[in-house]
Amino acid sequence: MTLRIGLIGTGNIGTYHIDRITTKLSGAAVTAVFDVASTRAREVADGVGAVAHQQALDVVEDSNVDAVIIASPGELHTAQVLACIGAGKPVLCEKPLATTTQDALKVVEAEAATGKQLVQVGFMRRYDRGYQQIKSTFESGGIGDALLVHAVHRNPTVPETFREFMAITDSVVHEIDTSRWLLGEEIVAVSLRSGKKSPHAPAQDPQMVHFETESGVLVDVESFVNCQYGYDVRCELVGTEGYATLENPMLSAVVSSGARRTVVPAGWRERFDAAYGAELQAWIDSVPTGAYGGASAWDGYAATAVADAGVRALEEGRRVDVDLIAQPSFYARK
Amino acid sequence: MTLRIGLIGTGNIGTYHIDRITTKLSGAAVTAVFDVASTRAREVADGVGAVAHQQALDVVEDSNVDAVIIASPGELHTAQVLACIGAGKPVLCEKPLATTTQDALKVVEAEAATGKQLVQVGFMRRYDRGYQQIKSTFESGGIGDALLVHAVHRNPTVPETFREFMAITDSVVHEIDTSRWLLGEEIVAVSLRSGKKSPHAPAQDPQMVHFETESGVLVDVESFVNCQYGYDVRCELVGTEGYATLENPMLSAVVSSGARRTVVPAGWRERFDAAYGAELQAWIDSVPTGAYGGASAWDGYAATAVADAGVRALEEGRRVDVDLIAQPSFYARK
Amino acid sequence: MTLRIGLIGTGNIGTYHIDRITTKLSGAAVTAVFDVASTRAREVADGVGAVAHQQALDVVEDSNVDAVIIASPGELHTAQVLACIGAGKPVLCEKPLATTTQDALKVVEAEAATGKQLVQVGFMRRYDRGYQQIKSTFESGGIGDALLVHAVHRNPTVPETFREFMAITDSVVHEIDTSRWLLGEEIVAVSLRSGKKSPHAPAQDPQMVHFETESGVLVDVESFVNCQYGYDVRCELVGTEGYATLENPMLSAVVSSGARRTVVPAGWRERFDAAYGAELQAWIDSVPTGAYGGASAWDGYAATAVADAGVRALEEGRRVDVDLIAQPSFYARK
Amino acid sequence: MTLRIGLIGTGNIGTYHIDRITTKLSGAAVTAVFDVASTRAREVADGVGAVAHQQALDVVEDSNVDAVIIASPGELHTAQVLACIGAGKPVLCEKPLATTTQDALKVVEAEAATGKQLVQVGFMRRYDRGYQQIKSTFESGGIGDALLVHAVHRNPTVPETFREFMAITDSVVHEIDTSRWLLGEEIVAVSLRSGKKSPHAPAQDPQMVHFETESGVLVDVESFVNCQYGYDVRCELVGTEGYATLENPMLSAVVSSGARRTVVPAGWRERFDAAYGAELQAWIDSVPTGAYGGASAWDGYAATAVADAGVRALEEGRRVDVDLIAQPSFYARK
Repeated sequence: MTLRIGLIGTGNIGTYHIDRITTKLSGAAVTAVFDVASTRAREVADGVGAVAHQQALDVVEDSNVDAVIIASPGELHTAQVLACIGAGKPVLCEKPLATTTQDALKVVEAEAATGKQLVQVGFMRRYDRGYQQIKSTFESGGIGDALLVHAVHRNPTVPETFREFMAITDSVVHEIDTSRWLLGEEIVAVSLRSGKKSPHAPAQDPQMVHFETESGVLVDVESFVNCQYGYDVRCELVGTEGYATLENPMLSAVVSSGARRTVVPAGWRERFDAAYGAELQAWIDSVPTGAYGGASAWDGYAATAVADAGVRALEEGRRVDVDLIAQPSFYARK
Repeated sequence: MTLRIGLIGTGNIGTYHIDRITTKLSGAAVTAVFDVASTRAREVADGVGAVAHQQALDVVEDSNVDAVIIASPGELHTAQVLACIGAGKPVLCEKPLATTTQDALKVVEAEAATGKQLVQVGFMRRYDRGYQQIKSTFESGGIGDALLVHAVHRNPTVPETFREFMAITDSVVHEIDTSRWLLGEEIVAVSLRSGKKSPHAPAQDPQMVHFETESGVLVDVESFVNCQYGYDVRCELVGTEGYATLENPMLSAVVSSGARRTVVPAGWRERFDAAYGAELQAWIDSVPTGAYGGASAWDGYAATAVADAGVRALEEGRRVDVDLIAQPSFYARK
Repeated sequence: MTLRIGLIGTGNIGTYHIDRITTKLSGAAVTAVFDVASTRAREVADGVGAVAHQQALDVVEDSNVDAVIIASPGELHTAQVLACIGAGKPVLCEKPLATTTQDALKVVEAEAATGKQLVQVGFMRRYDRGYQQIKSTFESGGIGDALLVHAVHRNPTVPETFREFMAITDSVVHEIDTSRWLLGEEIVAVSLRSGKKSPHAPAQDPQMVHFETESGVLVDVESFVNCQYGYDVRCELVGTEGYATLENPMLSAVVSSGARRTVVPAGWRERFDAAYGAELQAWIDSVPTGAYGGASAWDGYAATAVADAGVRALEEGRRVDVDLIAQPSFYARK
Repeated sequence: MTLRIGLIGTGNIGTYHIDRITTKLSGAAVTAVFDVASTRAREVADGVGAVAHQQALDVVEDSNVDAVIIASPGELHTAQVLACIGAGKPVLCEKPLATTTQDALKVVEAEAATGKQLVQVGFMRRYDRGYQQIKSTFESGGIGDALLVHAVHRNPTVPETFREFMAITDSVVHEIDTSRWLLGEEIVAVSLRSGKKSPHAPAQDPQMVHFETESGVLVDVESFVNCQYGYDVRCELVGTEGYATLENPMLSAVVSSGARRTVVPAGWRERFDAAYGAELQAWIDSVPTGAYGGASAWDGYAATAVADAGVRALEEGRRVDVDLIAQPSFYARK
């Protein structure tokens, strides 16, 4: 009963998923792929015995495809997800669900209209055990009510094509999702601050991003995507009675020449490899029942709306409110 | 050649200093004290063989007093420090140097007019070895140029008399000084954000305070003085090539019942006892040469000016610029 | 090209493997099982669509079985592994390879006679990333030549049937393998020391076990299998220029009420789940090529020989030499 | 009421004490010194306004000396301590109290005969806050009854004159004292193991030293005095319910180029400076009352007896019993 997966977008993250499905996870196979880089797509397809289609939506339509993973460029996500919904096929869409709030809303409305969850958005941090421990500590009352969240998102470098807004749509969007998920409430406003620019950065970097939630929790996110030294993601949830915080995973230490050294993760693969694996296996396992555990289309919509507000806050140099529609009952938190 | 110290203000911090001078440090004795609580002052004086004066300024004038420590309420500091300058006596003034920028400026002008440093302000963190290591790492180029500072100042509880501005003048003022000192530049603007209030706090708490420095470094300070769980001071200096950060001192760990536990300092005495000791011994040692190592009157003035701006930012709900006078050459950093 | 696995022994570790193969790993399925508890075996088989055989060796002979996992009681391992070698089928044998050195030797000789590696022994720690980092640090010269190893093996509790020798054959045997593997040399002598007995232990516990290697490295192992508080495995390799050490994985920390708390693993599954997964996937992947990466039959033989010497050292209260045969060239380290 | 201290031995540790008494502590002054290096002694004396005597015992006899610190070579300690007892003067004797058990016994007997404690032995670790936390955790029942102690004593290098026995008498003797003090019981047997020698060491190094206590607690000490990388002292006390362990003090961390680095202490001064200071101040404070808090002559005797047994164990290659006299009631633990 192998789940037959069609995958759209055989770039970095796409082949990362294909490799994992093929060689590390249980219960699924990639049977169809598409990429505009058609030679690349064919090579990848041949490597795993899949069909390489000429059009993205052919993957969705393929009768040998039970479920779809979307790893194409973000601006194509909405149309592809909508096609999956139209075809009644479960879809795991890499973040973002859409590049505009309006597009994300279309997905929410289309899915809600079917009355059945088909969409999961690839916010893999929800599957990271450290984040899960923080959530569990918080929900069990171990630190009281939430007051503040301090988050850091550092990346060693980004390409020359980097622009300020990308830090929000590509990196901070993860912090948007983890904040909403950990706190169990929506973000209602966004503002930004920036100061000195790193000489290593093609555009303003670092940036400090500030969220406010419904209940008044303040979230600050340091986004610094040219930090040079490694990949460093942190999250501290401060409550009325204490705090819970991620620890950077360290498996061994070396002491020599007067110093103790531990390794900092080099990139997102090292840091979140286990989370990506847990997410993908859980999604594969959930397809038969439809009981998806990760981020929903609503979460994808809310994340896009907050990111949108963040980009406007960046462009307009002011605090921007986030306006969400009333949550369809379909998405009510269970 | 014992240094004869007169101490004004025999409250908490005053008796903490007296006890240390008398029983733990070298080269000094307390020979005169004053406090409005005259019975208390007399008891303290008797305990160390000092004279208890009827007026604060009598301590300054006392011919058996070589140098003065001021630990009185902050609003009295300026007059007392000016008296010390007038008498040509070295003075270690607990923070703040003054409660208004104008008052602090009077001290700066009076001292500069004498052409001789007499004033040290009690920013003891400059004597904390952790902070010193961060400064040394930064100055030796180990993390590149400064971009950001993240600071946290948490206190378990404050009295019912607590008001929002006190977090700035009493707690954040330390972060003002450490930021200026670590970075070697002035703070030029202050803003605040606040969200949900801790139910344990008599007034809004926590507060997020933001500084900008001359060169554009962004400093954020979480001030949370009712955090319940302990005393927690953190400082991370993020540079273009890496970062340096304080570690909370841990001397031992206990593992039982599935958990590893280390102790969080209960209060400022535990956390900064060694720094207070180092500061006071260094000041005693510096009196004969006049080569003081700690915060100067200029530093006290700048800290007061930034704190003033912070209080205005709090009251007016906006970003406030800090206007400092041109630094007298007398205070030029060596 | 799914690898069809026959599994002997559907107890704790056996079902742990079956569950993983079926629901978490890629490229394999369990097609046949056996257990003396035949009802249990049938249930397990039904759950995964496998055949439940009446005899252990029927699993080996089953033409729908490409490779075998042995998770039966240790005293049955030799015969079952020999049957696999006889049938020319790859076998992953849980430790120990044999319960006597003589039996382990039979396996080594039988395998060497075939001229082809078929046997891997389930020392899963070789797949733990922390251990791998230590090995890599050591082999790259980061700590100089090896001088000492300090190891700790703590388990919260053991059943009432526990006897002293079991600590050696069940727990310390892992330290035997990791020591040999990390150091790349054989253990030549074993001795033990014991003192006060934990009141929680059915027999003497803790025990200190000491190894000496060919080149004179001293290894000490604290074996304490009733430590109550959690599962705690440590390894510090001390070299001439520094040391490398395992860090207990910590994913998050909670601070409240004056203490910082991190979780200690509750048992071997929590601590080594990722290592078991990596081992099993790597073995599955290796079957087609025969290029196994883990512990060989020689490693299993050497571990058994050292454990045997340890049991004799325990019984006779003296230092016992380990006598290994000359290593067949077949097993020469690559 | 300054305590007038006479100090014998103006070498490294002697001048370290003199400097501290003169410039960092309260209530004492060095009024007389002696050293066989008489020029050096005179310089030191001149520096602090003390008299430089021609004979060690002249320091003891000096009527301007209230109490004596002995920092001379170990083999001279007994005679000098006995002279202090004879003169009725309190004495802080650096470890060891004596170089033979017989000599140490003489001190015990002489002091007991006076019926008054005059002798404190300079085991400064009893004043280290980390060790104190372990003791406090243990005594409050936080880890149950003691079963094991793991200790490490590493030093970067030792001079070419180093011989094996020195590791025991100079370094391990500290572990002897801390073990006895933490556990509150005597060590009854000692054995040693050694393996590969560090190429940096003039004689066998490292050595593993094993103690057994009255109640059967096993203590193992790694003594490695040419570890190259820094000064590293560890102590883990394992109990029936958990363990307590020293943490190496870390005040800050630096992260750059893919690694997190913390500093390892370079030597004993860095690691135990605060403990030396606390010890010396406490001793000064105790002289007027005679209520000394540190190691007594009995502790010095027991440490010497265990060290003696250790040296014999080294020379004779066997486990050696420690034979202590019955403890005079004078020394009964309070």
